[in-house]
Amino acid sequence: MGMKLVEWHSLRSFIQQVFTKAGIPEGDALILADAFVFADMRGVRSHGIERMPNYLERVEKGLINKTGEIRILSESPSTLLVDACNSLGSVACVKSIRLASQKVKETGCVTLSICHSNHFGAAAYYTNMIAEMGMVGFTCTGATADVAPWGSYERYLGTNPFSISVPTLDGIMNLDMATSVQAKGKLRVLKARGEKVPEGWCLDKDGNPTTDPDAAIAGTMLPMGGPKGYGMAAFIDILGGVLSGSLFGKYAPHFVTDMEHISNVGHFFYILDISHIMPLDQFKRRLDIFSSDIKSLPKREGFDEIYLPGEIEARKMTQAKAEGISIDDIAQARLKEMANKYDVISPV
Amino acid sequence: MGMKLVEWHSLRSFIQQVFTKAGIPEGDALILADAFVFADMRGVRSHGIERMPNYLERVEKGLINKTGEIRILSESPSTLLVDACNSLGSVACVKSIRLASQKVKETGCVTLSICHSNHFGAAAYYTNMIAEMGMVGFTCTGATADVAPWGSYERYLGTNPFSISVPTLDGIMNLDMATSVQAKGKLRVLKARGEKVPEGWCLDKDGNPTTDPDAAIAGTMLPMGGPKGYGMAAFIDILGGVLSGSLFGKYAPHFVTDMEHISNVGHFFYILDISHIMPLDQFKRRLDIFSSDIKSLPKREGFDEIYLPGEIEARKMTQAKAEGISIDDIAQARLKEMANKYDVISPV
Repeated sequence: MGMKLVEWHSLRSFIQQVFTKAGIPEGDALILADAFVFADMRGVRSHGIERMPNYLERVEKGLINKTGEIRILSESPSTLLVDACNSLGSVACVKSIRLASQKVKETGCVTLSICHSNHFGAAAYYTNMIAEMGMVGFTCTGATADVAPWGSYERYLGTNPFSISVPTLDGIMNLDMATSVQAKGKLRVLKARGEKVPEGWCLDKDGNPTTDPDAAIAGTMLPMGGPKGYGMAAFIDILGGVLSGSLFGKYAPHFVTDMEHISNVGHFFYILDISHIMPLDQFKRRLDIFSSDIKSLPKREGFDEIYLPGEIEARKMTQAKAEGISIDDIAQARLKEMANKYDVISPV
Repeated sequence: MGMKLVEWHSLRSFIQQVFTKAGIPEGDALILADAFVFADMRGVRSHGIERMPNYLERVEKGLINKTGEIRILSESPSTLLVDACNSLGSVACVKSIRLASQKVKETGCVTLSICHSNHFGAAAYYTNMIAEMGMVGFTCTGATADVAPWGSYERYLGTNPFSISVPTLDGIMNLDMATSVQAKGKLRVLKARGEKVPEGWCLDKDGNPTTDPDAAIAGTMLPMGGPKGYGMAAFIDILGGVLSGSLFGKYAPHFVTDMEHISNVGHFFYILDISHIMPLDQFKRRLDIFSSDIKSLPKREGFDEIYLPGEIEARKMTQAKAEGISIDDIAQARLKEMANKYDVISPV
């Protein structure tokens, strides 16, 4: 079989059809499909179609609310607390951002807190959507406990990622990162390749440093930069989980391994309408000086280019939109399986 | 001579008197003195009285506006752009936060952008002040170029710190960190002790990794976690400098070494009134579960205790308030020198 290139619209349409067949309303299925394809195009495979089987299983087991309803629990001129009603994370976030974006035009900035939600995938999807509106978008989310607080070897915090995006002259600048040393998926990749885990990434279940992938997966990941990443992960859990009224720390059931309980995680969003502080064009022109400066700095040995935050992902996306999304053997087999099961024409 | 303990009120009063003699209005001098003493009590010496001579020199050379005036340049229900008018950073920030805190009660959250400002010292001073009002406080600030973007060896970004604070049942939880591998001051400490710089912290001026303190000081610091810290530092410069209309990147004159130009740096603040999302008591009780859980996790070998973010600094502050602030030989000599010069009674 080998690698195949699939046109991105075809892949998105396929995902939408599969989830529609699974009972998700067509418009909501399109939101989810768009978020998956976004991640795959940017090379963030762990938040793309790889997640489909897990999401479908949760939908079918009734662990996710298919209706896609959301409910405003409370609001003030610049805050919005939304109950995701256990809908898909991406669906709840996109609908809530639409509500919030009406407020932000009037007041200048909005805080959006979402409770009772599910895994929301690639954080950059939402902040880029906000940046496309000429705004600063920030989000962070609590995640299942996979990381030990600094000084412990017991998992309590998630890989708790955050993302921030701003509009530029010709697109978007974005940073989307986990606060753990590495994304959890990397351990599985190393294991599959028979490689060792780099030192400083993980502890085994007894708290000893380990380079063995199995011991690392059974143990815990470490926060990036030790106490710094720990502090960031803690505050992300406070904003995403504690503040929203959702589950936090060790209490959030694992989205992948716990197929009995609903997820009930929370997300935090901050949206700033730049034009309330500075004319948008002026901001973009100033940012362009900053970016151009950095791009033209002298390079260290071993570096061909200095990248702006998110530049690599944005280029991959441009390429994937033009040439198609590469799908490997395993993913092709999985797509065909889902195509059969849901009676949808496979894109591969 | 040796180490001396000085009662914190006495030290604060001394600093206030010195700056009043240097021409700063008494009330503004108290703000600055309080911020300096806060840093010294928390053990963050690089933002305490150690900075006095540099600040005084800038004030006397007319590089800082003594009047402490600030001006609102634009505002909307939830945003505030303030011209610090080249006043002291701490004075401009405290006065601006007071203005912003009136808005936040009504709308729920506020974005405060400050331009044309100066070095503001310990970021936690401001976010803790905000947390004391029952709010979430976040700030970040651009700083003089000391850090190379990932892939380069030329300084372009600052050690760009950020701070976030939230109120707890019995105080405040706070994270205040630089996005560089280490604070710049650490290099000078290592040099003074004749020690080597740990690997991975710095590059020399030609871009080679170095462990020599002199070569490191002449070269550049690296961002924490490589591309992650670089991305964070870049966005902090965008929020603090680009957005506020202040100098950013390499353009901000060095506060310590450039005694000819005004600083013109910018700061970014985000303030959220928690009670607009969740009753404050409920938030504090939920946060207490999170904190108690973390404190009681099993400890790794070599760790006596698991600390919450900012817990070490908070404990040092409690101790210093009770027992006094320890002042070493060098600092004592400096305090006496300033006491003579400004005709103020020395606290040591």
